[in-house]
This record gives sequence, structure tokens and C-alpha cells, in this order.
Amino acid sequence: MIFPMNNDLASKPAVTTTRLEAFSDGVFAIAITLLIFGIKVPTVANHDAGELKRQLWALWPGYLSFAASFAIISVFWIGHHQMFQLISRSNRTLLWLNNAFLMCVAFIPFPTSLLGVYSEQRVAIIFYCAAINVTGVVFYGVWAYASGQARLIYSGTPSRVVKVAGWRILIGVVFYSVAIALTFVSLTASRILLLLIPLFYLLPSSIDPHIET
Amino acid sequence: MIFPMNNDLASKPAVTTTRLEAFSDGVFAIAITLLIFGIKVPTVANHDAGELKRQLWALWPGYLSFAASFAIISVFWIGHHQMFQLISRSNRTLLWLNNAFLMCVAFIPFPTSLLGVYSEQRVAIIFYCAAINVTGVVFYGVWAYASGQARLIYSGTPSRVVKVAGWRILIGVVFYSVAIALTFVSLTASRILLLLIPLFYLLPSSIDPHIET
Amino acid sequence: MIFPMNNDLASKPAVTTTRLEAFSDGVFAIAITLLIFGIKVPTVANHDAGELKRQLWALWPGYLSFAASFAIISVFWIGHHQMFQLISRSNRTLLWLNNAFLMCVAFIPFPTSLLGVYSEQRVAIIFYCAAINVTGVVFYGVWAYASGQARLIYSGTPSRVVKVAGWRILIGVVFYSVAIALTFVSLTASRILLLLIPLFYLLPSSIDPHIET
Amino acid sequence: MIFPMNNDLASKPAVTTTRLEAFSDGVFAIAITLLIFGIKVPTVANHDAGELKRQLWALWPGYLSFAASFAIISVFWIGHHQMFQLISRSNRTLLWLNNAFLMCVAFIPFPTSLLGVYSEQRVAIIFYCAAINVTGVVFYGVWAYASGQARLIYSGTPSRVVKVAGWRILIGVVFYSVAIALTFVSLTASRILLLLIPLFYLLPSSIDPHIET
Repeated sequence: MIFPMNNDLASKPAVTTTRLEAFSDGVFAIAITLLIFGIKVPTVANHDAGELKRQLWALWPGYLSFAASFAIISVFWIGHHQMFQLISRSNRTLLWLNNAFLMCVAFIPFPTSLLGVYSEQRVAIIFYCAAINVTGVVFYGVWAYASGQARLIYSGTPSRVVKVAGWRILIGVVFYSVAIALTFVSLTASRILLLLIPLFYLLPSSIDPHIET
Repeated sequence: MIFPMNNDLASKPAVTTTRLEAFSDGVFAIAITLLIFGIKVPTVANHDAGELKRQLWALWPGYLSFAASFAIISVFWIGHHQMFQLISRSNRTLLWLNNAFLMCVAFIPFPTSLLGVYSEQRVAIIFYCAAINVTGVVFYGVWAYASGQARLIYSGTPSRVVKVAGWRILIGVVFYSVAIALTFVSLTASRILLLLIPLFYLLPSSIDPHIET
Repeated sequence: MIFPMNNDLASKPAVTTTRLEAFSDGVFAIAITLLIFGIKVPTVANHDAGELKRQLWALWPGYLSFAASFAIISVFWIGHHQMFQLISRSNRTLLWLNNAFLMCVAFIPFPTSLLGVYSEQRVAIIFYCAAINVTGVVFYGVWAYASGQARLIYSGTPSRVVKVAGWRILIGVVFYSVAIALTFVSLTASRILLLLIPLFYLLPSSIDPHIET
Repeated sequence: MIFPMNNDLASKPAVTTTRLEAFSDGVFAIAITLLIFGIKVPTVANHDAGELKRQLWALWPGYLSFAASFAIISVFWIGHHQMFQLISRSNRTLLWLNNAFLMCVAFIPFPTSLLGVYSEQRVAIIFYCAAINVTGVVFYGVWAYASGQARLIYSGTPSRVVKVAGWRILIGVVFYSVAIALTFVSLTASRILLLLIPLFYLLPSSIDPHIET
């Protein structure tokens, strides 16, 4: 008997999305842990104690961009899981859209390092926000494809849940776009907003009762 | 039929905490393995043999801080598993508290590198101990939230087990605080203590018979 | 009763290849996420804003080689899973062939970094293509060994599926060989081909209905 | 009902060692993939083509030490799985012995980088062999503890299997000790031996029929 020959994807959704989710979880866990390499051990001439202390304080933009990125990747991870609770089966297009999304997630350590080193530069903040927003837009694309015409989601999913799930992604894109606009008013305000945006996703959502968090 | 719509968290605890634990295990395994990057291959002019040998010996603070951090992250990993043996279900707050804890764990490679390079500096030792202590306090927060008013733990968990589990975290915080205080007496004594603290958790605990180690 | 003593591999294929696949997935996920370290945060004297912007633009070969490698490792990952859907059991030779393949996958971040830094150099493009092709040839070796004389695959696997699966690997080797040849005509044409090759695997294949994607 | 309270380790061996094995597999997969960072992209003044080519050739000790370490970590990974097929249950001592072993595995990328850069130095070869041997000795310790007085292994495991499993670890320690001794005769011979040792484990073993490979 040939096991995979009789494999009807529609009848074995759990297996299919489980594999995709496990790979995704791996990329999430690795990308989030690699963020720490954005913070470099300072080089201090003659191992001067006062100088080392000053340099450790001076790394605060690095600590904050580490925290901001850890939080927003956590948000994407939680959102990805919530989304795949609603997706019943996979296909080649979904697989590639998801891989494009993972590529964006794996890219985030670079703009995070950049922001940690050049936090006082408008271009670093804009680059960071743009990278998060591309990630968000691709993530929305995954959801739009899977949920459009109920293509790959459980057939009884309430349309309200479909809409709110999409809206929660797009609102993040709006937030980071505001952060970009803010750089032309105040870099400090923009940087503060970067730390606050992930906190929005701490708030309970109306879709929570419907989806396993 | 919509699978996640009828999802009663209280009735499917294993699934919920399994996912959270798998992600946590990933971050633990990655953070613990990345510690090795704190030890840099020395640059030796003209590839001088004697000089290379001296520099490899001179890296001993790097080897020891690698070992100390590997051991304490192991302690957190074992403790995290013991804790989640007692936690029956998850919610949004627990998820975020756990992510805050993982952020602290993912941060540890930085103070470990720092201690390896600047082991003779009080500020490096204090920074290292402070990083571990913040991790410990957030870890205690996870437990305090989950076990407070038996919020998310198995209802029959003996209150003695709840107390001992918390006490074992806080004693670590006390130990590292002592290591900070010791830096004002003897840096060597403080560094030795950093190596000894994880060994405390090798000792059998009264809660072991109740929890899968 | 001794569990592993009575272990008949042929009767427990799922367990055997599951373990091998989980380890492989780990290496895939890590290698693909480590690619980002090929892109280094630029060092800008005096934190000059215009200079930082120019340098971020100048990194475009790094962004493109990151994307090209992320895509081709994804292709290998998907192909590896499709292949192991057809493989029913493992043995020592398959284990080592698979490990040799994983070694090639784990090597890819190095030529990717190289290509990002020296994209205008023929030698960097050839080195990159050669690395991918060695990976492809070893991957073909895994399949040739497993499917040869139906050694380790499900006995009823249609010979057409066996052939198409092998052909899809070898066509990639041909593509990258063309990219090598192209470097003697136009480096730009060669680099464009590197970005296009993974897209070939986005196309549906005649073996898809037979294999879980 | 409290799930973990009634947890009898002896009656649920699969669960206990599964968790420990999953964490170990994570560390193995990460350590083996991080080896690639031992090979640094060369810095070539003025992006000179001939010079880049020469430098890529000059990295051959790095490629070989990458391959040697990838192979020997694979050997440890396979051996670890074979060992845990025979281990029926865990305890605190086994957990810590296993963590000490994983610490040694996670350390291997450092001597590998060192050997890649300073392959013509006796001290680098000795350091590399010593690191592998400490790993091997600790691995033997795990097995000696688990199998001694049939402490944690399946009660019917033939004593011959216990002996051969231990012997296969110790023979590796002997091999690397010979490689150390050889450095005083010929560095080249020693380096060749480092590449050959893992191949020994490609040979079928008399314990294979008894253990799932």
C-alpha cells in the first residue's frame, strides 16, 4: 500500500498545516533569538572601568530596539498561530506566500541592528518601519489568499472573524506608517511609538473567544 | 464543522501549553547554543604558535562565563518545564508574561559575552547578575500570575508545591544579589559564586516527587 | 520487555523517517534564518545621514542574494518533504547521505554572504552556483539511492513519479550550470537568472497530485 | 484531577525521554548549523578578482574543519539517539549529565573555527581534539551512569549491547588521542586523521540490528 498516493489533502488538514506551522515556528524562534546579535560588546581601550560603564549606558538604543523587535515578532508569531487555527488546508500558493512572509520575519534582525546603532538617524527608523510594514503586508496577503472566497479556511468561519483578523494586521501597517510620518516631526516621538505599537496587541480582541490564543 | 470555533481552552489544556512550551524550548535551545559566540577566535600576528597558546589560555574567563550561563539557562529550562507541568491552561496574559521571560533568556548571551571579555570589571559582573535577576523576577511573575488564586494551575496542586516552586526562583535572585554585593569585597569571590549558583539546583528538591523532572 | 530490541524498521517506517525529518527541518530552519547575517550593518563615519542612506542602497546585492538563497533553500525544504513522503524506511546509508545533504544546506549561508559582498565578481557567482549544485547533486544522490531498485520507497510508487522527482532536482543543476556559463557572457544576466531559478519551482508539477506538498 | 501529581516516571518513560531528546536535538541542529560561521567572507582590497579567488582557495582548512566537525557532531547525534533508544526513564542526575554533554557539543563551533584559521598550528589541532575528547568522555559518562547496574535502561537489554555501545564511544576518544600524538610526528597526518575518524562510524556495527538507527 502506498501511503502518500491516497493522500487527500482536504481530509487530512491537520497534518498539512502542522508541518508548515512547525517550520514557521522554527524560523520565528530563531529570528527572535538572533536579535541579540544586534547588540555588540563594546570595545574599551585599556579596559577602562568608567568608559565601559558609559558605553553600556550608551547602548540603550540597542536594548530598546531589541525589545521592540522581540515584541513585534511575538505579535506576528501569535497572529500566525491564530490565523492557522482558521486555515484548514494548504496548497502550493499558500506555502509560497507563507515562505515569503517567513523571509520578511527572518530579515527583521537586520533593521533591528541598524536601528540600534543609528537610532538618531531618520533613515534607520524609516527603514525599520518599512521592513515591518512589508512583513505586515505579506502577512495580510497570506490571510487574504487563504480567506478569500473561503478558499482554504474552515467553511463555517464567521465573516466577522475573517474581517477582524485582517483588520488587526492592517492596523499595524497604519501604526508603523504613522511612525514613519512622525520622523518628520520628532524622531523621539517616532521611536517611542515603535515601543508602544506592540502593546496594542496586548489588548483583548473581539476575535479571542473564537480563536485559541 | 469549524474546528477552532468550539475550542474550549479549559478542556484542551495539553494542546494550548504544548504549543507555548515548544516555542519556549526553541528559544531556550537557540539562546543556550548561541552562547559560544561570546568566545572569539583570537587574532595572532604572524600566526605565532606561542602567542596563540597564551591567547587560548587567556580566554579562560570566556570559557567560564560560557559554562556559567549554559548552566543557569539549563536551570531556567528545567524550572520552566516543571512549572508548566503544573499549569493547566493558557491565556493572553500568561502568553505575554512568558514572552517577556523568553526575551530575558534571549538577552543572556550579551551579558555572557561581556563578562567573558571584561571579567575583571565590576560593572560587567554587576550587569551580568542584574540580567539574570531580571530574568528570575519575570519568571517569578509568570508563576505568581499562573498560581495566584489557582488562576491557571491544576486545581488540586498542593499549596506547599506552589510555595516551594516560587521559593526556588527567588532564592536564585538572592544568590545573584549576593554576587553583586560581593563585587565590592572581592571580584574573584563574586566570579566563583557565579559558577557555584547553578550547582545549587543540582540538589534534589522536596517538590521533585510531585513534578516530572 | 525491551522496546527497541523487537524493533522491526520495515514495520515502523513513520517513526524512523519522522526523526530524520525533524532533525532535517531544524537544520533547514536554522540555515535559512542565519542567511540574514550575510548583510552587515554599515559603518558610517560621524553617523552621516546621507552616507548611511547611500550605504543602505549599496547593500542591494546583499538583499537580493538573501532573497535568492531564502527561495532556493525553501525549494530544497519543500522537495525534501515531498521526497520523504515517498520514502518508507531509513537505513544507515540513507542517514549519512541525508547528513551530507544537510551539510551542503548548512554551507549555503557562506556563498550567500560572499555573493552579497562581491556580487560584481565572476568568481563569487561561480562559487555560489557551484555550492548550490553540489547540494543538488547530493540531494539527487539521496533520491537515487532511496528509489533505486525501490530500495527504501513505498513499493507501489509509480515509476513516473520516481523519474519526475529526480528530474526536478537535475533541472535545477542544469539551471545553475547555465548561470555559471552566463557569467562569461554577462554577469548581470547571470545574477538575474539566480533570482529567477527558484520561481521555476513555483509552477505546479505533474507529481503534485501524487505527493503532499 | 491533578495530572502531574500522579506522575510515575517509571511508568511513562516515553514522555520523559522524549522531552529531553527534543531539547537535545535542538542543540545538535543549532550547533551543527552554526559551524558555518567559522568560515569568514574574506576582505579583499579593491575587490581584486584574482585576489578573491586566491583567498577562497586559501580557506580550504576552514572548509575541511567545517566538514570534519559536521561529521563528528552527526556521529554524536546518531549515537545519542541510539543510546536513548535503550534508556527507559530519566532522573535529575541523567538530566544534568546530558546537559553537560550538550554544553560540550555547543562548544564545538569554537575549536572548529580555531582549527579553520590556525590549521598549521599544533596547538589548534590539540585544542580541537581535546574538545572532542572531553565531549566523548562526558558522553561515555552519560551512558555509564544510565547503564550501570541497569539503572535507567530497559531491564532486558543484553549486556553485550551495553558494552558495545560504550566501546564505540571510547574508541573515538582513542582515535582523537592518536590524532593528538600524531601532531608531534606530522601535522598533515593528524589533520587527515581528523577527517577519517567520523568515517569509522559509517561502518555497520554489530549493535545495529538491536537498535533503531
